[in-house]
Amino acid sequence: MSDPKFDVVGIGNAIVDVLAHAEDAFLEEHGLAKGAMTIIDAETAENIYGLMGSGVEMSGGSAANTIAGIASLGGAGAFIGKVCKDQLGEVFTHDIRAAGVSFETAPDENGAPTARCLICVTPDAERTMQTFLGACVDLGPEDVDDQIIGASKVLYLEGYLYDPPRAKEAFVKAAKIAEQSGRQVALSLSDPFCVDRYRDEFCDLVENHVNILFANEDEIKSLYQVDGFDEALQQVRGNCEIVALTRSSQGSVVVAGDEVHVLDAEKVEHVVDTTGAGDSYAAGFLYGLTQGRDLATCGRIGGILAAEIISHYGARAESDLKAVLAEKLK
Amino acid sequence: MSDPKFDVVGIGNAIVDVLAHAEDAFLEEHGLAKGAMTIIDAETAENIYGLMGSGVEMSGGSAANTIAGIASLGGAGAFIGKVCKDQLGEVFTHDIRAAGVSFETAPDENGAPTARCLICVTPDAERTMQTFLGACVDLGPEDVDDQIIGASKVLYLEGYLYDPPRAKEAFVKAAKIAEQSGRQVALSLSDPFCVDRYRDEFCDLVENHVNILFANEDEIKSLYQVDGFDEALQQVRGNCEIVALTRSSQGSVVVAGDEVHVLDAEKVEHVVDTTGAGDSYAAGFLYGLTQGRDLATCGRIGGILAAEIISHYGARAESDLKAVLAEKLK
Repeated sequence: MSDPKFDVVGIGNAIVDVLAHAEDAFLEEHGLAKGAMTIIDAETAENIYGLMGSGVEMSGGSAANTIAGIASLGGAGAFIGKVCKDQLGEVFTHDIRAAGVSFETAPDENGAPTARCLICVTPDAERTMQTFLGACVDLGPEDVDDQIIGASKVLYLEGYLYDPPRAKEAFVKAAKIAEQSGRQVALSLSDPFCVDRYRDEFCDLVENHVNILFANEDEIKSLYQVDGFDEALQQVRGNCEIVALTRSSQGSVVVAGDEVHVLDAEKVEHVVDTTGAGDSYAAGFLYGLTQGRDLATCGRIGGILAAEIISHYGARAESDLKAVLAEKLK
Repeated sequence: MSDPKFDVVGIGNAIVDVLAHAEDAFLEEHGLAKGAMTIIDAETAENIYGLMGSGVEMSGGSAANTIAGIASLGGAGAFIGKVCKDQLGEVFTHDIRAAGVSFETAPDENGAPTARCLICVTPDAERTMQTFLGACVDLGPEDVDDQIIGASKVLYLEGYLYDPPRAKEAFVKAAKIAEQSGRQVALSLSDPFCVDRYRDEFCDLVENHVNILFANEDEIKSLYQVDGFDEALQQVRGNCEIVALTRSSQGSVVVAGDEVHVLDAEKVEHVVDTTGAGDSYAAGFLYGLTQGRDLATCGRIGGILAAEIISHYGARAESDLKAVLAEKLK
């Protein structure tokens, strides 16, 4: 087995975020499920966008945010995802490459436009997401490059990939190649409602195919349909080699067999927008892991990156992450 | 003459900004004129974009920013400008309407894409702009709606309109309608290099057709080709009814015949990005003027809005401007 070319390859929905401030009353009036990610069709997207205030467009997508974060820290990252050959597709492609990520998935020439996620950020900094999947529905196993998967230490998959019909096949194919190549498979559960939609499949994945699991408190409780965090913790422990559970202001818990770390959250002066917090945690954690850091340090790096992301608007880093990390870890 | 429907109608280039952080060395390496606005073609835009870091897309355009600011304060604003019927055109249209502005110019169905301005923000918060005019070159006198111009207290024009070939005709036509309808004509000189390109025409406009002139120190010095601010001030005084000259951290000077106000700048804790500072000053000033405020207060409102804009990234307001103004003016 040759030396891996990439630290982490991610597969996910290639999305451009449209962020706008909104009041809680706006969410209620239009029946938007606060804090969740809801899949919407093109017509609904147009309607909701028409109701939203002035926005800001920024590249997003859960796994894409994570890989961009890893690359910004100096890790070698690759991304597989589907955009359309349109203006937002150009924006997505430009930004992820500008972050230093290898992104070579062929764009759709025609078909649906590049996916967008309409994100309402309420005054409490919570984000509520409505996603029009657009070109993402065309991602299929033919887009999974065996060589890239085989050449990456870790394959990182987002649970959201179960929403577009053929992406799941891409997901399964990639996981198989990674296993056969002796690489690690990491999964993010993405969203408690997403877990609800695919619970049995996710349970099977976690038990049988995933080496590293990322979930927040709501997601892991949803996976095992339990009310308490500790109950979920006891269930997932032993089902998966490495588990990193994030708990917002309560920090994170990292479990690997008998090894358990309970890590405090980084202090954040003013939380502006929680979009991308989980994605950034995964970025920091996987960067640490592929650099050979111990699990407690991996969790701490995750927490440092999450703190950077929630202190400003948008899901991609604004600061020089290398400098932030050097300062915090010294 | 019926009661005007709009406080201000603006005509300008309809542009989506692409903002990215950059170091001074980047500007030097690629020969970008720091602090200026340079017109570039499609190929150059693609090249520079390819070299820039991850960006954020936000609606921009000088006069468009001003009108959006006026509407955010509760003024009645209309905008005339040309986008293409593409994704960035939808973004521009959505955002200006979401700010409460009436925007009904027919978009190009085909032709060049919606204009974009590639903005490099250096660590000193200065912005350097490269503009690909795209669909803006198709704005012409046929886009000037007589009724809207006649129904607006003030017609606001940006000097940048002299760059696209036929927009100047639209500019002149609109100014004529405004004069005939007994409305006021306001002009922003936009940029010292822009002044350099059209000095004679701008001098004629200021002396013979413009009632309210906005310029920063560099622009007014460029107009009269003088080295000192006071020299420029003495020249412009008397040439134009109302003149508002902005001087960055030195505040602004408002002159109307014998009336002269020298206004301090609002205090800003941390200047993040100066993009849109002049546009916001004009927004505050014109909002005050159309609300019947005295000239000193108009200048102060301009300063308050400029201070809000430069304390964050991007040229459109992030805060509730009505609340900001109510707080500062109380």
